[in-house]
Amino acid sequence: MGWMSDETGLEKCAANYVPLTPLSNLRRAARIWPNREALVYGHFRKTYREYHDRVSQLASALNGVGVDSGDVVATLIPNLPPHAEAHFGVPACGAVLNAINNRLEPETIAYILDHGGAKVVLCDTQFLGPLTLAIAQMDGAPPMIVECPDDQAGYPATGDYLTYEALLEKGDPEFSWVMPRDEWESIALNYTSGTTGRPKGVVYHHRGAHQNAMGQLLSWQMPRYPRYLTIVPLFHCNGWCHTWMIPLMGGTVVCCRDITAPALFAAFAEEGVTHFGGAPIVLNMLVNAPEDQRRAFDQVVEVFTAGAPPAPATLAKIEPMGFNVTQVYGLTESYGPATECAWDDDLWGDLIGDSRAAVKARQGVAMPAFEEITAMTPEMEQIAMDGVATGEIMMRGNGVMKGYYRNLDATQEAFQGGFFHTGDIAVQHPDGYLQIADRAKDIIISGGENISSVEVEGVLMAHPDVMLCAVVAKPDEKWGEVPCAFVELKEGREGDSSALIAFARERLAGFKTPKVVVFQELPKTSTGKIQKFELRNLAKSV
Amino acid sequence: MGWMSDETGLEKCAANYVPLTPLSNLRRAARIWPNREALVYGHFRKTYREYHDRVSQLASALNGVGVDSGDVVATLIPNLPPHAEAHFGVPACGAVLNAINNRLEPETIAYILDHGGAKVVLCDTQFLGPLTLAIAQMDGAPPMIVECPDDQAGYPATGDYLTYEALLEKGDPEFSWVMPRDEWESIALNYTSGTTGRPKGVVYHHRGAHQNAMGQLLSWQMPRYPRYLTIVPLFHCNGWCHTWMIPLMGGTVVCCRDITAPALFAAFAEEGVTHFGGAPIVLNMLVNAPEDQRRAFDQVVEVFTAGAPPAPATLAKIEPMGFNVTQVYGLTESYGPATECAWDDDLWGDLIGDSRAAVKARQGVAMPAFEEITAMTPEMEQIAMDGVATGEIMMRGNGVMKGYYRNLDATQEAFQGGFFHTGDIAVQHPDGYLQIADRAKDIIISGGENISSVEVEGVLMAHPDVMLCAVVAKPDEKWGEVPCAFVELKEGREGDSSALIAFARERLAGFKTPKVVVFQELPKTSTGKIQKFELRNLAKSV
Repeated sequence: MGWMSDETGLEKCAANYVPLTPLSNLRRAARIWPNREALVYGHFRKTYREYHDRVSQLASALNGVGVDSGDVVATLIPNLPPHAEAHFGVPACGAVLNAINNRLEPETIAYILDHGGAKVVLCDTQFLGPLTLAIAQMDGAPPMIVECPDDQAGYPATGDYLTYEALLEKGDPEFSWVMPRDEWESIALNYTSGTTGRPKGVVYHHRGAHQNAMGQLLSWQMPRYPRYLTIVPLFHCNGWCHTWMIPLMGGTVVCCRDITAPALFAAFAEEGVTHFGGAPIVLNMLVNAPEDQRRAFDQVVEVFTAGAPPAPATLAKIEPMGFNVTQVYGLTESYGPATECAWDDDLWGDLIGDSRAAVKARQGVAMPAFEEITAMTPEMEQIAMDGVATGEIMMRGNGVMKGYYRNLDATQEAFQGGFFHTGDIAVQHPDGYLQIADRAKDIIISGGENISSVEVEGVLMAHPDVMLCAVVAKPDEKWGEVPCAFVELKEGREGDSSALIAFARERLAGFKTPKVVVFQELPKTSTGKIQKFELRNLAKSV
Repeated sequence: MGWMSDETGLEKCAANYVPLTPLSNLRRAARIWPNREALVYGHFRKTYREYHDRVSQLASALNGVGVDSGDVVATLIPNLPPHAEAHFGVPACGAVLNAINNRLEPETIAYILDHGGAKVVLCDTQFLGPLTLAIAQMDGAPPMIVECPDDQAGYPATGDYLTYEALLEKGDPEFSWVMPRDEWESIALNYTSGTTGRPKGVVYHHRGAHQNAMGQLLSWQMPRYPRYLTIVPLFHCNGWCHTWMIPLMGGTVVCCRDITAPALFAAFAEEGVTHFGGAPIVLNMLVNAPEDQRRAFDQVVEVFTAGAPPAPATLAKIEPMGFNVTQVYGLTESYGPATECAWDDDLWGDLIGDSRAAVKARQGVAMPAFEEITAMTPEMEQIAMDGVATGEIMMRGNGVMKGYYRNLDATQEAFQGGFFHTGDIAVQHPDGYLQIADRAKDIIISGGENISSVEVEGVLMAHPDVMLCAVVAKPDEKWGEVPCAFVELKEGREGDSSALIAFARERLAGFKTPKVVVFQELPKTSTGKIQKFELRNLAKSV
């Protein structure tokens, strides 16, 4: 411990200590780049000075309607300017942002509003229906509704609520932001998408949000003035902290309401987008876009992808289109990305095709905001780094959540042994790079052998007819479980179950080969994760 | 303040809180890039695994010779591998690194060793002479000497002391690093170069070193795997934190013992150096290098320059040679760079020649590790941002020192009003960019008019015969003070004092034009700063 023999006068003071917070990032950008474009959505185009002033107005106006320090303000908004502004404006009045998944059913929204105790909800006009249904089901006091209309997308104000712009007008653009006095204060409350059971409320602090944002900039090697497209929903780990991060580089946040191939290509061609993050389903959308939806663009677009391991086939196709894809991995509990498949051209620059994609399909190594991320046995011992042994991914560092809101048991369980237990099962290659084998609960155990559903899915995705697939366990009298594949076909293709099984058998051990193939649309969460628990139920009866 | 209504279980724990320290950067690099080149000097070439293990050995061996947590370990070494290793190895045993300027006279070295209380000194063979003279003058207990020979440069071991490599051999490469428990613990003690009076001991903490390093990476927009050349002496703000920073990007530190034009061009051409920091005197050396000392190289070398405002003439010449120069500004008290002249191609991309150099000559805006850096009146009020009004540069943020070691008065004075008072006088342009007018004490007051010595120097530097110059006040009966210029000529040029005065008069008001010009070599500190106090003494008698 580096305490010197005499530390008199060397204590923290106003000159040398400022609690770390993403709020500082926007303040700095507004000072340095007041006239640079900061936030755009169609004809809504704001500079950093305007962005900063609108955030001040929001903070001031929230204060004015009774939001105090530590109160919760919820949002139900697509990736639009009010949502980005709320990421700064809510904490700038000392409150905690609860960005709610806008595709949830009213019952779950009601649960979240009750559990989090939001005082105000900023709600896009499109989601007023589910919100009012949710409020009707609440046990506690209903929140105030502020309506965020979107005229550009055909959602004009209903006239039933105070609108977002009217709220802003009540606010003072000179409002003095409530900065954290302690960087451990809470900045956001994010409910896990909860594939089973009640969602848990993950609490973020100012320090973690700041450090995760800085670390991701280094991992992304982001140059100044990036043009960042919001594809990762802002209700998903606060869009992986990206809204908090972009002002550090004086960049522009380009908003996108609906994620469609024409909208994405327009963003690349017209807005000059240079960076985005998104689930592999977005990459699939790009590589499978029909020719008439594609647009030419000059820049190389840097992509962080996560949420599920992207199929090698997808990775191999997207790079020649002008995208550089880096696989990252994280959870709500890690503010979004925690590991990155850090590329080393000296080692892998000559790889092409499948072997290149195979390296890029690894989840990789700890980002700068994390002290240690590795795979361990149930006894918390490091697994062998041989690409074969599996263990649970464990992490510790400043990019790990404070804990679960009002859920001490879950917090203590998650943090046992001084690491956050991710529940994800991975191998570690000899170079230490992690590669997810499966979610613990997604592993299929057939005749005593572990089968990685991810491995089987990777094989099926290489078939030219397959758009998307998921493999789950189907109960079996003889083997205990057998693999069952659910497949979404590409447009115009017809499914041939036995041909697909034969295709898989050529590439996989017999026990890993799916015994049943079902062609249907796959159930997904709003973040593009396939809901395997639904498929497991279906698998019982096919 | 964002404390939620129920924060039960949301406290810091081992999983979610790790004190910020640059030590984490090297640990992470050794895990991710064990086989990448980390530290090189001629035929000394070490990978990150080797670098990490040697650091562990150093920490372990220092422990073995009695260095405890909080003890001070001093260095008197050029920018060589042992010095880089000490930047990690000393704090990795819990100790505090005191990198001493190796060009100081024995008396001052004795003062520093007494004041800092170093237990061990790692000393390059070249500097054993001054060190032993210093130790003979000490009041307190003499430190143990560990000799760092440099066979490559013709400094073999004397045989009189334990050598650095012999010390390392005593150490355990598996030694468990002593990580800080509190990020406010001290990591380094750097004595100001002290152009007047006793040097003050500036104390750095782990948090500040870490945040300054991260922030500079963002400002430098540093891509992965940089090749960084050590020109800024490691005893000068720990080389601006760069040794602590490079492992975050998996880069290589290329060591350079003597800063000569052939050595620098060799580093660009043979080692593929991509980044360095250095005083304007280094830029002068490059632009004025004779043709036969130059080498061709392909990369654009990114340069951070600071220490004094570079002359527009130098800036205009160096860019076409393959260097992109960014002016930064800072002090020992700010861990090195604190502001950067953040470039905006949209605004200034079309500027060429003098107008381009004029923008690049500004010290700029706050880097990410600083919350606020601006110029203020003596009453601590913001000055007018009009490019004319002057004020003192004030800063606050996580990149500001803990304070001065065993000097409570100086610390309290420096931090008055919640800001660190830099003593540097600047104007602020309408866009907020700072430009240094002068050190408070360097301003020349002639007939009641303030004259910026920097402005006069900028004019003289544009003259084709002038290599370097400094303008100071000369006492004058009539005017109080008048400007007096000291000029270093380019090789082969002859000085013509009246021609130079006429040249200046064409470009400056009469009262700003030097009344006397003296041709001589300028006295400099080891960091390339011109020692104006010596020139002021000389000026009295010319």
